[in-house]
Order: sequence, then C-alpha cells, then structure tokens
Amino acid sequence: MEAKGEAFRTIWLKDGDPSVVQIIDQRRLPHEYVVRDLQSWQDCAGAIRDMLVRGAPLIGATAAWGLYLAAVESHRSAGTAEFIRQAAEELGRTRPTAVNLRWALARVMERMRRAGRAEDLVGLLRKEAQAICDEDIEICRGIGRHGLPLIEEIASRKKGETVNILTHCNAGSLATINWGTATAPIYLAHQKGIDVHVWVDETRPRNQGSQLTAWELAQNGVPHTLIVDNAGGHLMQHGKVDVCITGTDRTTRTGDVANKIGTYLKALAAKDNDIPFYVALPSTTIDWSIIDGAAIPIEERDPAEISRVRGKSGDRYLDVETVAATTAISNYAFDVTPARLVSGLITECGVCDASEAGLAALFPERAKRAS
Amino acid sequence: MEAKGEAFRTIWLKDGDPSVVQIIDQRRLPHEYVVRDLQSWQDCAGAIRDMLVRGAPLIGATAAWGLYLAAVESHRSAGTAEFIRQAAEELGRTRPTAVNLRWALARVMERMRRAGRAEDLVGLLRKEAQAICDEDIEICRGIGRHGLPLIEEIASRKKGETVNILTHCNAGSLATINWGTATAPIYLAHQKGIDVHVWVDETRPRNQGSQLTAWELAQNGVPHTLIVDNAGGHLMQHGKVDVCITGTDRTTRTGDVANKIGTYLKALAAKDNDIPFYVALPSTTIDWSIIDGAAIPIEERDPAEISRVRGKSGDRYLDVETVAATTAISNYAFDVTPARLVSGLITECGVCDASEAGLAALFPERAKRAS
Repeated sequence: MEAKGEAFRTIWLKDGDPSVVQIIDQRRLPHEYVVRDLQSWQDCAGAIRDMLVRGAPLIGATAAWGLYLAAVESHRSAGTAEFIRQAAEELGRTRPTAVNLRWALARVMERMRRAGRAEDLVGLLRKEAQAICDEDIEICRGIGRHGLPLIEEIASRKKGETVNILTHCNAGSLATINWGTATAPIYLAHQKGIDVHVWVDETRPRNQGSQLTAWELAQNGVPHTLIVDNAGGHLMQHGKVDVCITGTDRTTRTGDVANKIGTYLKALAAKDNDIPFYVALPSTTIDWSIIDGAAIPIEERDPAEISRVRGKSGDRYLDVETVAATTAISNYAFDVTPARLVSGLITECGVCDASEAGLAALFPERAKRAS
Repeated sequence: MEAKGEAFRTIWLKDGDPSVVQIIDQRRLPHEYVVRDLQSWQDCAGAIRDMLVRGAPLIGATAAWGLYLAAVESHRSAGTAEFIRQAAEELGRTRPTAVNLRWALARVMERMRRAGRAEDLVGLLRKEAQAICDEDIEICRGIGRHGLPLIEEIASRKKGETVNILTHCNAGSLATINWGTATAPIYLAHQKGIDVHVWVDETRPRNQGSQLTAWELAQNGVPHTLIVDNAGGHLMQHGKVDVCITGTDRTTRTGDVANKIGTYLKALAAKDNDIPFYVALPSTTIDWSIIDGAAIPIEERDPAEISRVRGKSGDRYLDVETVAATTAISNYAFDVTPARLVSGLITECGVCDASEAGLAALFPERAKRAS
C-alpha cells in the first residue's frame, strides 16, 4: 500500500541517522502529512500516549523502537540494562487496552535477557524492533490472503456488482506497519480488480475513520464513502452493506473482541440484517489468559476528545469547542463485541469461528499452553 | 421547563409587534442564546430548512406561524387567499420526513377553508397558530404524565438509586414548544424529586444531543453526561442504562418509528441487553397511511453537516473542516426502528404497545378512519 504515491511504512529508522526513529503524526491527517522525529524512549511513550501513533500493531512496534532508543541512550551514557527495563515499564503504562503493546515489550525484553553479556545491545534491539515490523507486514499480508476469498465469494455471488464493505475506526495501514488488518483483504481485492466500495464510519470521538481510513483508501484509489457512526444500521437495513470487517485491539480465547467503541453496535446491526461480520487480527492480539470479554479493562480517555474537534479553518489548523464547558462527559474508548455476533476471525494463519474451539483448532499449541 | 432561569417557549409572537414571530436560533446553542425575528413566511421556511428550528412539533408550529405571517402580508398588500396557499405549498417542501409539518399546514388551511368570506384571516390564523402551540404544550405534558410511571416504577425497583436514562438526539423542549416529548417524563420525574441521570448521545452529524439536549437539561438542573453515539451499547452491556427514551419524527400505524439516524442501533443494543426502549410521541406524528416503516422517505442532507463542525475558538464562533475536501460523504438524516424493538409508545393519551393493535386500542377512531 502507498502514501503520496510511494510505498511506505508507518515507522522507520531515519535515513542516515540511526539514533532517530521517524513516524507520521497521525493527528495531522488528512490535512497535513507531517513526519516526526522520535529521539528517545520518552518520545516514543509520548507518541503512543498522545496518539501520534495508534492501532495495536503500530503501538507495539513504537514501543519496541522505544526500547531500541533506550539502548542507544544507555550505551551513550554507559548506562545499564536496568535503564532499559525501566523504560519498558513506563512504555507499558502508556495505553491500558492494547495487548500487543505488552507483547512487543515482553518479546524485546526476553530477547535481551537471553543475550550474552558481551553482546551489542543496541544492535540486538535494533534488529528485534526491525523484525517486529517486518513480521507485522507479513502478518497483515497473511490476513489479506485469508480474507480475500470472503470478498471474492461475495463478488462472484453478486456477479461483478460492487461489493460494499463497512468498516469502523482505522484498522488500516496506519494502524499497522503497512497493509492493515481489516483493510488488507480490501486492498488485495482492489488490486485484483474486484469492484469494492468501503463505507467508512467517522468513528467518534477521534474521527479515525474520517481522518485516517478515508485518507489511506484515497491514497490507494479504493472507492469509499464517509458516513457518521449512526448510519451503518440504516445502510444495512437497505441492503447497502454486503460485509463488515473491523479490527480488534484484543481478542479473548473464546472469541470476544475488544475494539473501538461502537463496534458492538455495528455487529448487532449486521446480525439483525443477516450480514456477515468479520474481525481481522494478528494472532498476537489474542489474549489467551482471558475467557470472558467483560474482563478486558476498558480505557477511559480525556473528555476533551469529545468536546474539542480539530479541523481546518482557512489555512489554519485549530481546535473548536463544541460543547458547553460545564457539560459532564464520559469517554470510553472501546467496547466488547461478544463472539456470538462475530461471523469469523480472519488471522494470518486462516479464518476461524469466533469461539474457543475455532481458535484452538487454528492455534492448537498456544491454546494448549494457555489451558 | 425553563431557560436562562425563566419559563420559556421556543416560538412566540414578539412583544409589542404582532407582525414578527420570534425563535431561538438553535444553531448557536449551547454557546450563545440568540433570538431571531421571523418577518415573513419565507423567513419561517428558511428557519425550518436551515434548522434554526428543528424537531417535528416545532417545525409544525413554525410552519403555522409562517402561514399567519403570509396572512399578515396578504392583508397588507390586499392579496388573496391564493397567496397563503402558495406559501403553504412552499413551507411543505422544506423538510421531507417530518409528518406534522404537513399536518400543521393542513390544519391551518382547513381552518381557513371553513372561514366565512367576511372573516378576519389574520386574526384567524394567529389564533390557529397560537392554538397549535398551546395544544402542543398540553400534549407534551400529557406525554410526561403517562411516561412518569415508567420511571417511577424503575426508581422504586432500584430503591431510590439513580435511574439512568439514555436518550438520542433532542426530543426535548427545544424540539417542541415546551417540555419536549422524550424529556417530558424526565422533567416531571426530576421535579418530583426522583434521582434521574440522563446519558446524552452526541448525535452526529448535527450534535443535537451535545448542543441542545445537554443545554436544556443543564438549564433545568437535570443531571446528565454526554457520550458519543458509539458508547451507548457499552453502557448498556455494563448495567449503566435502566431505560431508553427517544422521540420520533414519524410513526407508522404498525408502530415502526422513524427517528434521528442511529436510533435503530440503540434499540438493537437495548433489546440485546433486556433494557426497555420507549418512544415518546404526540399522536399527530402517527402516519396512519403507512404500514411498513421502510416506506417512510428518508431525507438525505448536505454532506457539509458531517465534514464541517461548528464550535468556539477563543471568543470566536467558527466552522472547521474535519475531512479532506475530496472525500465522498453520504448523510442520511433518519433511520427506522422496527416495532419489534420498541417496548412501548408513550403518547399524550397513554402508553401502548408498538403494534397495530396497540395503536388501534389507544386511538380507535383514527385507526378505523385509516383502515
């Protein structure tokens, strides 16, 4: 997938300066394409916390690059591994819901633990962060390959008529390193010449749909239409949606999925209108320790995300207050869609039922280890 | 119900100048309380079309006052009844979905038709518009009286714990002349000292929840919390909603309800979590000619309602563009909630099942006339 006409990644080591990691400041899209330098693990933590980067896989990758930058700093100041461990702890506290933030940190720390005393920590952590990114791209392509037949099947049933796909939030390239999770089958279908059209939920309060998903679909020439979060049910009632595909931040071993607030409402509408509802995920976001989705901690975020809206006014880029300053606001960031509403989970290893049996059949060893 | 500490109406004849009708410019709330003069039927049509006023009952009342202003103008220029008939036709085209826009116009025109040649048309239409407003207040109080026991029952079951009510859009005082439809039972319960708390859906794209419902609940001291439209399902899953009450723009004779886009999604979530979902309505919004909700025409509005957000920046009040200018946008204003998802209809004549039998039992004569 491309941006500005070139192949791209959402995070990379700066060309010519290996002490700087670069990202796209996603808060400025779609109006401005701003690349930011991250020069320390604290910069990485800030980028995650303030959502310059978001999306479970990209959060994990940013944390891994954060540990690499901690190693660079530690090496420069003759510091210890303890410095890196503290960075890992702080990075782990930046976002409570995304499970592969902690997965990525644990992976890097484990690699470090296994390293010999004489080993070059900087080189080691750089290689590990790079590997996490490369593997993520492979995982997303795998999700795309396994999800593609679901779209092809609809296209063939509709005899070449447009396949209308509804998605919520941004489980796209911008949420990963490239390709995305929910978008990977869509990009592949589009590349294969299947006539796809995407209904893009605005995704209040942070507008990831209108600002990120719409942007990246446009960059890649995929036809799409923006709608408010309220509209999906109406479209489904009127036969205007053939399939829903969303991402997830965390999936339980029984197939419940925590994803952006509002996903549950779309899954209910899909069920009510007999429309398949798929959830795309890298298997790293499966939390084998949790059985019931209700046990997933749900992050409450800053009320200002709701009351303050960022946009363009003439040449300026500014925030407006849409709500009276005295209004109480509650801002839950995720909800849990129970497995019974999910038609299937699209992973890099294949598509399975959203159930304990379905997941165990696809990932027998991990399921066994967890039980 | 009050605003700015005083009893109020949403539309009234200007004190000392009976050729001017006044309204609150609802597009400026909650930041500014601006009263506008309507000096012609065209002003009234513009106020409806541009949504300075909205909400089915207030739209109807504004149209009726529009005909009064047409009569004033016709009288001034020695015009004919034909002038008023043309105004009625134009006023009827301002908003396609609201059934009591046409109801109010038909009522006034019928009154005019029955008038003797010698009758004072200006006085007649003024009295009729005034009567529509007075009756609307009585209707809303009636809805309040019949809806109150539903809240009292929950309060008594919860032994005085807070009753949490979720509402969508603004079916409040601001949508009517006073009291509102969905809000009337809530205001009455609050006045009776019942501990109520309202979850206010933001209601994209026009933010009637965050800007109007939150404002009028605050004016009347009713505790409330603003949430995004995506959040209601999550709150219901976690036992934080005891009952949903919304309004409706049009109800079919079988109990299907057309209301602000997104209502259907909340009704699905209420059903999935065994939470009662009530719809409050004046019986004038029942369309006895329509059996299936799918036959209700659904208005598509300006995409700029989605891409452009109005708010305050410092002392200024301005619009920001939140979406790339090239993004295609679809903006359906209403959806239809099928009767099977509605626990009951709260009308000024009582509460009934959302079904043909339920409505026929409560309104036997109208049902008979329609069949």
